[in-house]
Amino acid sequence: MPCNNISSGATYLGDGFCFFRVWAPRSEKVAVHLLTPQERLIPLQRAERGYHCGKAAGVEPGSLYYYLLDGKKERPDPASRYQPEGVHGPSQVLGRCNFAWTDHGWRGLSLKELIFYEIHVGTFTPQGTFDAIIPRLESIRELGATAIELMPVAQFPGRRNWGYDGVYPFAVQNSYGGPDGLKRLADACHRHGLALFLDVVYNHLGPEGNYLRDFGPYFTDRYRTPWGEAVNFDGPGSNEVRQFFIENALYWLTEYHLDGLRLDAVHAITDKSALPFLEELADAVHRQANELGRRIYLIAESDLNDPRLIWPRERGGLGLDGQWSDDFHHALHSLLTGEKNGYYQDFGTVEHLAGAFREGYVYTGQYSAYRQRRHGKTPGPAGACRFVVFIQNHDQVGNRAGGERLSSLVDFDRLKLAAGTLLLSPFLPLIFMGEEYAETSPFLYFTSHSDPELANSLHEWRKKEFAAFRWSVQVPDPQDETTFLRSCLHYELHREGRHSVLRDFYRELIRLRREIPALSELSRENLQAGACNREQALLVR
Amino acid sequence: MPCNNISSGATYLGDGFCFFRVWAPRSEKVAVHLLTPQERLIPLQRAERGYHCGKAAGVEPGSLYYYLLDGKKERPDPASRYQPEGVHGPSQVLGRCNFAWTDHGWRGLSLKELIFYEIHVGTFTPQGTFDAIIPRLESIRELGATAIELMPVAQFPGRRNWGYDGVYPFAVQNSYGGPDGLKRLADACHRHGLALFLDVVYNHLGPEGNYLRDFGPYFTDRYRTPWGEAVNFDGPGSNEVRQFFIENALYWLTEYHLDGLRLDAVHAITDKSALPFLEELADAVHRQANELGRRIYLIAESDLNDPRLIWPRERGGLGLDGQWSDDFHHALHSLLTGEKNGYYQDFGTVEHLAGAFREGYVYTGQYSAYRQRRHGKTPGPAGACRFVVFIQNHDQVGNRAGGERLSSLVDFDRLKLAAGTLLLSPFLPLIFMGEEYAETSPFLYFTSHSDPELANSLHEWRKKEFAAFRWSVQVPDPQDETTFLRSCLHYELHREGRHSVLRDFYRELIRLRREIPALSELSRENLQAGACNREQALLVR
Repeated sequence: MPCNNISSGATYLGDGFCFFRVWAPRSEKVAVHLLTPQERLIPLQRAERGYHCGKAAGVEPGSLYYYLLDGKKERPDPASRYQPEGVHGPSQVLGRCNFAWTDHGWRGLSLKELIFYEIHVGTFTPQGTFDAIIPRLESIRELGATAIELMPVAQFPGRRNWGYDGVYPFAVQNSYGGPDGLKRLADACHRHGLALFLDVVYNHLGPEGNYLRDFGPYFTDRYRTPWGEAVNFDGPGSNEVRQFFIENALYWLTEYHLDGLRLDAVHAITDKSALPFLEELADAVHRQANELGRRIYLIAESDLNDPRLIWPRERGGLGLDGQWSDDFHHALHSLLTGEKNGYYQDFGTVEHLAGAFREGYVYTGQYSAYRQRRHGKTPGPAGACRFVVFIQNHDQVGNRAGGERLSSLVDFDRLKLAAGTLLLSPFLPLIFMGEEYAETSPFLYFTSHSDPELANSLHEWRKKEFAAFRWSVQVPDPQDETTFLRSCLHYELHREGRHSVLRDFYRELIRLRREIPALSELSRENLQAGACNREQALLVR
Repeated sequence: MPCNNISSGATYLGDGFCFFRVWAPRSEKVAVHLLTPQERLIPLQRAERGYHCGKAAGVEPGSLYYYLLDGKKERPDPASRYQPEGVHGPSQVLGRCNFAWTDHGWRGLSLKELIFYEIHVGTFTPQGTFDAIIPRLESIRELGATAIELMPVAQFPGRRNWGYDGVYPFAVQNSYGGPDGLKRLADACHRHGLALFLDVVYNHLGPEGNYLRDFGPYFTDRYRTPWGEAVNFDGPGSNEVRQFFIENALYWLTEYHLDGLRLDAVHAITDKSALPFLEELADAVHRQANELGRRIYLIAESDLNDPRLIWPRERGGLGLDGQWSDDFHHALHSLLTGEKNGYYQDFGTVEHLAGAFREGYVYTGQYSAYRQRRHGKTPGPAGACRFVVFIQNHDQVGNRAGGERLSSLVDFDRLKLAAGTLLLSPFLPLIFMGEEYAETSPFLYFTSHSDPELANSLHEWRKKEFAAFRWSVQVPDPQDETTFLRSCLHYELHREGRHSVLRDFYRELIRLRREIPALSELSRENLQAGACNREQALLVR
């Protein structure tokens, strides 16, 4: 079997045969060190461009292995499908898919139908697993959301993490229920008519358990990110790095039947290639969607207000399907709360919000005092359904010193006003788990790194990041389990008192959005938005 | 006079009045320390966004000054119009333009007409001045070239430098003859029907005499360039940095009547803005060209093979007018010389050259062994006149250990073959000074830094850079004046023996190019190029 016809990682072929493929251009010799069922070394052949591969007999699903690099370093598989013992442990061979999928008729949803419900698996339920989400799908569907969006589930260190410290892009977090758990959730979502999106992180890897640099030039020092080494998307070896992440995207969409990916912080991807990684990724994903006969979307988080992301390739764009609009959030949040610290200093008038309604972004080239430069560009022909908007999300809640949800910052009337602004907007709304019933718990930043020094330095960095906001609250220790436990939802609240009133209000707004043609059309062209500053009123028609 | 209505630097207003404006956001207080005619301190007012400005009386053209930052540091003006004593000396106030321009009817040339003749001022003539070029314009015109392209003339350290170590983007090199010398040359060019282009460096500043970081965040550590700190085109303060360079471009084009700029190494500009600096620059320059009623072009040197540079804005491009094609050179050079070292390993077959004829680039997405990644993108609708091609230029000659011109590497027949390939191509040809008559001197890399340690470390870096080429020649010491002197031209050779035969051949080819419609049309669409590898023949029709 030629090395380039099969994706990286351990691919089980049946009958005890397994194909291993790893990109390790820095190693002359790579062997698989099989730990189970019987310990032995399986040397791989060196193939073109730094790949090493080989077909081995006597390997069963469930076998544990490391790669042995040049007879010296033992490392888990960068493309490991499962890390049952966590980020430092061996990788596991998965069997061929024998999951009993029931979603054969599922073709996905149209972009316009999408109403996201963002979930952090660990805190959404007491169990913190994929399986525990399934019984709640009915109520999410009943609320009117049409898509679940999971925060990242790629294997991260420990059991408590937002997911952005993942270091095995292909491996489903062991403590969430592993690969089969995610498949059961995807299948159940589709049974309920819900799409399932996943947040994936291609701009950096977490600081603990990242062994990729022992294999090859996955990273570069030519650029920096706030979270560590920048991924090498345009230097020597970058085709293989791209291939790794493109295979990753296709893997989630195909193996787990996912309906789309949210690409974390693409502004932290620096890539000067004539064919940028994101363009190549979008092309590969859309071709795969065609082959699968399903509607699949790539939606980027971006801080650039750059419509190039969502413009079609014929117009010089990268061809992604949509992007998050932080500006919409900031405009509404600063209006509702009166906050003017940190990046909120760029917002605070009704006209800002009107701008967000007209353009998707507020900043389309104006000077930003926070950024100390002009920011953004008008999105031109990009339609309203290219923008995902929110009044809360994991970042906007969790990146506050106290992790306060909007419900603990403003009164009930304002919560309703916010909901109306969100759900009657022409954009694709995203609801952060618990938002719809004014959940009382905060959503704090939590980790469970095993290296105390690392944990401490990250905590200090975070405190520094918050300095611009001058929050009076103390930043809780992310490593403290209490910080995690405080962030867990009290989902049953949604049936009680004013919690249930708010939830009913959300449901009613979503119904209106769906049923009134002027709302369901999601048009920016036919929309006029203006601000009456004296009355603090936003007029949209 | 409001601070933002006038460009940075010292603007002489007449009657002894001078307006000073400097961007120094890192300083609370800035004063002009006037050295002549009478020494005194002129405090400036702090204006918006870190500018400091003020109108002063009793300042005459020719006055020398430094800026005094917060009463502590004395620094020359980043936007100095002239540094009569070099990079470390005071800046000089220039008078209002009283140059007797004679080029009133000059409107520039059409893009298709351009045939560049690249000149290094210091080595082109024994005097090494602008004025000494003027008597040679007649023969350049007679050759058939239509545009002079000067290597950078912004003030650099010492008297000997290629120009890429410039540190005062607005100041004409003192040893070349200063501002009036350049004006005399521009005027004379236009009198001869020649356009005048200038090479400008916006991706880095030289390592000696660069005081810009004492003023503000002109640089960033978020990205790196091979030559030093990256210019801050997208971080806090970047609007003012952009404004500095945009004013610079407009200054050359307006004050010196230049017809275009060659933007050095734009691949070393990292800029993730939604409105990239190069797009903003192109827009500003083209608007200025409209106002001036002249044809003005921006042509980028780029190593990216990315047509986005030259695509129009409506197609998502940056809207530059053209770009250099190194691929054309490499394909032809490796065919003619058989060289396969360094980046020439990616070339060497006639098919490579045929590809360059078809697409402008050879690499439009193929894997490059030298770069260890795929490279480039097909330029699509970009026309042939968007590409500047050459068989020699300052880099391709000078960045060889021995600075060998093509004439010392291949026989006379091959020189003629190369000339034919260059001048009958559908692209815009560039001739490197002396190429047309097979100049016998090499073109070596030379500097005259005053810091010996710096000079030494640059020499070491250069030797390392050359390692990939495994040249057997010793790299001459760039600081040694002999290295410079060896590089000076023997222009009178062009009348002698085979030198004059080659020059006549160039002239004849240019005549054919101009007179035969199929050649003057510069069309990629109507051109077919194919390779006959067995006969080593390139078929173009």
